[in-house]
Amino acid sequence: MEELNRKSVDDFRKAEKIQVIAVLENIRSAYNVGSVFRTADAFLLEGIYISGYTAKPPHKEISKTALGAEDSVSWKYFNNTKLAIEELKQKNYEIYAVEQVAGSISLQYFTELNIEKVAFIFGNEVSGVEQDTILLCDGSIEIPQFGMKHSLNISVAAGIILWEASSKKLN
Amino acid sequence: MEELNRKSVDDFRKAEKIQVIAVLENIRSAYNVGSVFRTADAFLLEGIYISGYTAKPPHKEISKTALGAEDSVSWKYFNNTKLAIEELKQKNYEIYAVEQVAGSISLQYFTELNIEKVAFIFGNEVSGVEQDTILLCDGSIEIPQFGMKHSLNISVAAGIILWEASSKKLN
Repeated sequence: MEELNRKSVDDFRKAEKIQVIAVLENIRSAYNVGSVFRTADAFLLEGIYISGYTAKPPHKEISKTALGAEDSVSWKYFNNTKLAIEELKQKNYEIYAVEQVAGSISLQYFTELNIEKVAFIFGNEVSGVEQDTILLCDGSIEIPQFGMKHSLNISVAAGIILWEASSKKLN
Repeated sequence: MEELNRKSVDDFRKAEKIQVIAVLENIRSAYNVGSVFRTADAFLLEGIYISGYTAKPPHKEISKTALGAEDSVSWKYFNNTKLAIEELKQKNYEIYAVEQVAGSISLQYFTELNIEKVAFIFGNEVSGVEQDTILLCDGSIEIPQFGMKHSLNISVAAGIILWEASSKKLN
């Protein structure tokens, strides 16, 4: 255990976090929510903001994929994403929607921006981030994709973006 | 469709691929297999090698998460990973096990190696890559993790590694 640098729930809560917050807006699958908790635990994220009809802990399906990370990672629920964004702005977070829209920044260039405190908004599996939400953000970011489907599972997309954003900060 | 640079199955098969192969060894969940297909489609991977008791297409659960990528991405089945590795070596691929072992390379340093043709072996969700397999590889690679669980879902880990390996090649 020691060797792997694994933390107890208590250690985790006390550990210095990286200033990255994942916002989960209207996520349909609680399994995807749990998976993002597990990823947030791995990369020591500041926390997860849950908004709209996204499932929140305690929840059986979240536990199945979070494997305990729902107890270590800080999270907060908001009735709608607008409220979550207001709090993030008060805390001086820059906010990016993860969405393929005109003008979105391609992920490989994102870390060059060197943002100190950043929040990423992940939207519904089918309809994506709400248009009203996108308008409140500082920008959008996308993972460049070249295949037939042009979409990634949301827990995979979150893994890639949170890795890219946190790996530079964790060094 | 055009705007998003989305490809038909036929276009996809003809498109130039990046020289990255994902090997799936004894993966328990067919959903995870499907998710890796979807990621492989997004990043134009050369293909997927399936070994051991990992589920292979056609398979209902693979389809549920691959969403059609099982028809576009090339794949090949091997009874065991040793046979898959033999073929990869004949094709001049460098082979890395994705595993937390002594001496494994931390992912953020991996792309500096600038490997032309690379295969990554992903192992079972619980037991990881087989010891016999690790011994046949050129090395191991790990995603640095700092949390309580010290593990990522295999489809998330595959997404992160395949993104990191392919994003530099896709530019």
